[in-house]
Amino acid sequence: MRHALGLAARGLGQVWPNPAVGCVIVKEGRIVGRGWTQPGGRPHAERRALDQAGAAARGATAYVTLEPCAHHGHTPPCADGLIEAGVTRVVTALTDPDARVAGKGHAMLRAAGIAVREGVLSDAARILNRGFLKRVEQGLPLVTLKLATTLDGRIATSTGESRWITGPEARRQVHLMRLTHDAVMVGSGTARADDPDLGVRDLGAVRQPIRVVLDSALSLSPDSVLGRTARERSVWILHGPDVPLTARHGWMRTGAQLIQLPEGPRDLAAALRALGERGLTRVFCEGGGQLAASLIGAGLVDDLAVFNAGALIGADGVAALAGLGVQALADAPRFVLAGQERVGADVLSLWRRE
Amino acid sequence: MRHALGLAARGLGQVWPNPAVGCVIVKEGRIVGRGWTQPGGRPHAERRALDQAGAAARGATAYVTLEPCAHHGHTPPCADGLIEAGVTRVVTALTDPDARVAGKGHAMLRAAGIAVREGVLSDAARILNRGFLKRVEQGLPLVTLKLATTLDGRIATSTGESRWITGPEARRQVHLMRLTHDAVMVGSGTARADDPDLGVRDLGAVRQPIRVVLDSALSLSPDSVLGRTARERSVWILHGPDVPLTARHGWMRTGAQLIQLPEGPRDLAAALRALGERGLTRVFCEGGGQLAASLIGAGLVDDLAVFNAGALIGADGVAALAGLGVQALADAPRFVLAGQERVGADVLSLWRRE
Repeated sequence: MRHALGLAARGLGQVWPNPAVGCVIVKEGRIVGRGWTQPGGRPHAERRALDQAGAAARGATAYVTLEPCAHHGHTPPCADGLIEAGVTRVVTALTDPDARVAGKGHAMLRAAGIAVREGVLSDAARILNRGFLKRVEQGLPLVTLKLATTLDGRIATSTGESRWITGPEARRQVHLMRLTHDAVMVGSGTARADDPDLGVRDLGAVRQPIRVVLDSALSLSPDSVLGRTARERSVWILHGPDVPLTARHGWMRTGAQLIQLPEGPRDLAAALRALGERGLTRVFCEGGGQLAASLIGAGLVDDLAVFNAGALIGADGVAALAGLGVQALADAPRFVLAGQERVGADVLSLWRRE
Repeated sequence: MRHALGLAARGLGQVWPNPAVGCVIVKEGRIVGRGWTQPGGRPHAERRALDQAGAAARGATAYVTLEPCAHHGHTPPCADGLIEAGVTRVVTALTDPDARVAGKGHAMLRAAGIAVREGVLSDAARILNRGFLKRVEQGLPLVTLKLATTLDGRIATSTGESRWITGPEARRQVHLMRLTHDAVMVGSGTARADDPDLGVRDLGAVRQPIRVVLDSALSLSPDSVLGRTARERSVWILHGPDVPLTARHGWMRTGAQLIQLPEGPRDLAAALRALGERGLTRVFCEGGGQLAASLIGAGLVDDLAVFNAGALIGADGVAALAGLGVQALADAPRFVLAGQERVGADVLSLWRRE
């Protein structure tokens, strides 16, 4: 199962709206098939592993990180596939919370006389699938907030200079993180100030993340890098109802998708819900300080990825987070350390919400 | 030599104004004596190792992390000791920059027919002895600045609440760091606000660090914790010329040492020089944000010890560093990562000035 979870992780950021699943088929102590959900969400992990195993699947055990699907979608149900292939035992980590599955996959297998064991390494599987589970259960994607700061928590000097605080290795790591998320999100201030691309470079990305801008007034120019590249790689702009017609038309010509929200994206829960409705399970937020503070303040951040560079800017620099209004230390949002490592000249620490 | 350096490190913070030295005596492939400079600076490492080796020192090799002293101080010269003990070979890491030694120790040994090899692991020895070397060469102690912040670089909420941002393990680690420094230093604002003790607790400290307050106006009350404990553990207060007589008399009664500086401690280089003149080689600065920024701005910080807790306070909290006036990123003080580790629920990273 641990191996299957490792395979599943390869799909993170590449398979939305589907879950990233891994499958290992074992016969007489040997692995005869391995699969993981392919970019775009199809084929499913079980299908790939069964195809690889061929006739050897007969009488074998299948380890699957999530309950096999039971419904006819774009592909026939994986439960059927396992039954037809003659697998005699299935071990899973999690029940699929999707209402179309939700135990039906396990039931189909059992009805076909297959021995089923559930809940193996379920904690690890739950962590891996947090984005998918959160979307199904709460309608919201998992949000990872990136902070890349000096040792005193600054992201730019008083004049706004911010490139580069962290080194090339850290920036490459950020591209890897973008790759394992379905979307990269920034606020309009950062989009206007940095004119970023937000794509994944030099990593052979099969599926690029959606580039999301929260821009109430549709203030970002369609001539920005995001506007100019929107046909090649998706850009979604979440905006409010009262935006200039010229801006609306300008953006429509770029090929970007405009998503209008009744209250505008300042209602962050509604903005994230809109992303969840469109299938996003994992969103990587890259700033700026105002959006970061609003997300934190609203309790919408699940993970923090903090890069610290060995530099100091001082209190006249730009803060990584705008004000939160925290007065008592007991009210400060707390996160639990999930890991830390050296990345080039910088330090990366990963934190999960308490 | 690596073993000798490990022994030497035990003396850090305990041996000022002397260097922390380690000595290992080896005969026919076996260690017959080990020693390190004892708390207070005496006996020296060589004396301890020779005493332990006894007659076995005859014909042996002595590994010493610093050139053996050649002058009669409180103790007879160690070079003489090695010669008298019949050691036939001496390996050292560094030449002692102290004008009273400065090669004379090596020369004495050679004149006595002892084979001397210098410069073994000199880089590691230089790092270990940075405080001692800096004091001898520049008249200034090494300064380690501690920052204990949230992930967004805050040390307190807007209401000033700061206890505790980091966890008990990190606070214990701070006590260990105090122990390896000759003095712990704070600004008057922190001293007044926190009324700290600044001592080393629960670690069986043989020699407590000097507690130093930079207090231009002698504004801290003699009834503070520092004032009340000044007879048991040294307190040095650096102040300016124009201070109220009552404050001066109040502090003199506590047993604290008052050090008046012509320009007051705002001239930080002069303040540190005053500490260096009194023998301090390693100073641990624990805040606050104004003193930290002034030290950084003046280029007087050698090492940074940064504790990060998994909490966020936001821009309305108190910044770890006051303003530095850095406009171009190229002018931001840069530090090089020397190590990082998890400490309880927090992360510690250590940095050295570039």
